Amino acid sequence: MTDTAAVGDALTAGMSRQELEEMVARMIEERDPRDPNLMTLIAWGGDLDRLWPTTILATTAAAGGMDVAIFFTFWGLFPLVKEEKRLTGDNWMTKGLAAMNRPSAQHAALSKLNMGGMGPSMMRSLAKKHGVAPPEELMEMAQDLDVKMWPCQMTMDLMGLKREDLIDGLDETAGAATALARMQKSAISLFI
Amino acid sequence: MTDTAAVGDALTAGMSRQELEEMVARMIEERDPRDPNLMTLIAWGGDLDRLWPTTILATTAAAGGMDVAIFFTFWGLFPLVKEEKRLTGDNWMTKGLAAMNRPSAQHAALSKLNMGGMGPSMMRSLAKKHGVAPPEELMEMAQDLDVKMWPCQMTMDLMGLKREDLIDGLDETAGAATALARMQKSAISLFI
Amino acid sequence: MTDTAAVGDALTAGMSRQELEEMVARMIEERDPRDPNLMTLIAWGGDLDRLWPTTILATTAAAGGMDVAIFFTFWGLFPLVKEEKRLTGDNWMTKGLAAMNRPSAQHAALSKLNMGGMGPSMMRSLAKKHGVAPPEELMEMAQDLDVKMWPCQMTMDLMGLKREDLIDGLDETAGAATALARMQKSAISLFI
Repeated sequence: MTDTAAVGDALTAGMSRQELEEMVARMIEERDPRDPNLMTLIAWGGDLDRLWPTTILATTAAAGGMDVAIFFTFWGLFPLVKEEKRLTGDNWMTKGLAAMNRPSAQHAALSKLNMGGMGPSMMRSLAKKHGVAPPEELMEMAQDLDVKMWPCQMTMDLMGLKREDLIDGLDETAGAATALARMQKSAISLFI
Repeated sequence: MTDTAAVGDALTAGMSRQELEEMVARMIEERDPRDPNLMTLIAWGGDLDRLWPTTILATTAAAGGMDVAIFFTFWGLFPLVKEEKRLTGDNWMTKGLAAMNRPSAQHAALSKLNMGGMGPSMMRSLAKKHGVAPPEELMEMAQDLDVKMWPCQMTMDLMGLKREDLIDGLDETAGAATALARMQKSAISLFI
Repeated sequence: MTDTAAVGDALTAGMSRQELEEMVARMIEERDPRDPNLMTLIAWGGDLDRLWPTTILATTAAAGGMDVAIFFTFWGLFPLVKEEKRLTGDNWMTKGLAAMNRPSAQHAALSKLNMGGMGPSMMRSLAKKHGVAPPEELMEMAQDLDVKMWPCQMTMDLMGLKREDLIDGLDETAGAATALARMQKSAISLFI
């Protein structure tokens, strides 16, 4: 990829220290455009037990100075829905989805041991007892820490979710290409 | 890891620009063998809701010029089975697996809200309405875009899947060591 | 991030080859603190079908000379519980969790086709037939290969798991910040 033979054979004797450092920095940049400060999470799962790792990793990293973006897609979109929206969707299928999978972070289910909502209640109660903030608070904290929150446009369409269904303060909707371009530069990329 | 003290103290005055650039390129390569152009996905999940992100990320990245490989393992192998194969396996256990988890991308279930196949039908119908290609088409597209598709030999044996059960055009079967060696060099590695 | 203009314009003619190499190594290190030899896994899932990839990837990488750490969190903690512990937890909620989700690697369920434990038995029997070690053996092998095994303190508290509930030979408990700092330097980071 790097064309090292480009410049020819001028002697380094002719380069200043500054020129030399600039050349090296450029070669490193070309070879690896990665920024050790970037983290990108794909929030695919919308259940409480995935929402917690997503928001805990995002807020911990951002509090430590990292530049974090979360790309919310598929089931991961539902926790972005406002709590007061009981029903989303624009046809019987997307309405059915929302009816069976109640939107909002406040009503996220567990991927196992959900027990009709008793599992999540227990988990929230245990979390409170141990001083672990609920995901909806961690999402607000993430926004305060400038974590970028990108809803995936394509799966929003698929799931019948509209921008006004979602909480305030989110960033522009994005697509897979945007998420990929960012992951290519990120030191940490996780699919959660 | 890099032994910077190796070469001694010949003056750079004696190096041409080209020699200098070659030295720097070699040091960067040694320090980080990573290629910003590589992406490796581990397709562990075989459900429709994981197959979509896998194939969308793979085709989008490949269309954008990245070199993409997918390592299909565990449940992720079943979508590689030919649609006409209703039953795979060579004993009552592996036959039972295939009977309860119908193979092929065309018959992939949803990890939640499957509702005996009604969920996936709804999702496919919504996808069609919004111009999102079904995973079996995205898999073909991936092959056209030279995405490497590696079935995991060990889990194929475990699940009783034979090479002739799988769709045409796949690459050689591979093992964990191959996937790891590639992820070590990849800018993006995701477990889906 | 790198301040290339720092040193001024002393001529490289004045640098020895060794000084030059040291400067380049320092610049690469600053730009990307990543070590191609590090892998960090987040073991979030405790089911047999996730435990296998986690332990197979960890032992294969470690056997190949990589420095591997696994951060066990959420459901991923339960396989760390000693087999003889049928029940963990310190109140009705955490006891209930353990009762419905029997701890230890030996009793890990499958995320699909569990069929009251028949699924995992079948998988273990198939694995034995094909010479694939069970996860509890792979975990021991990982320890022999110096894989770092970090239980997540916060989710241990949440799930009511105590240090003495867990198998011997684990490393210190850790938090999200420790996992993130390590992933930032890792060539491979996966959420499993």
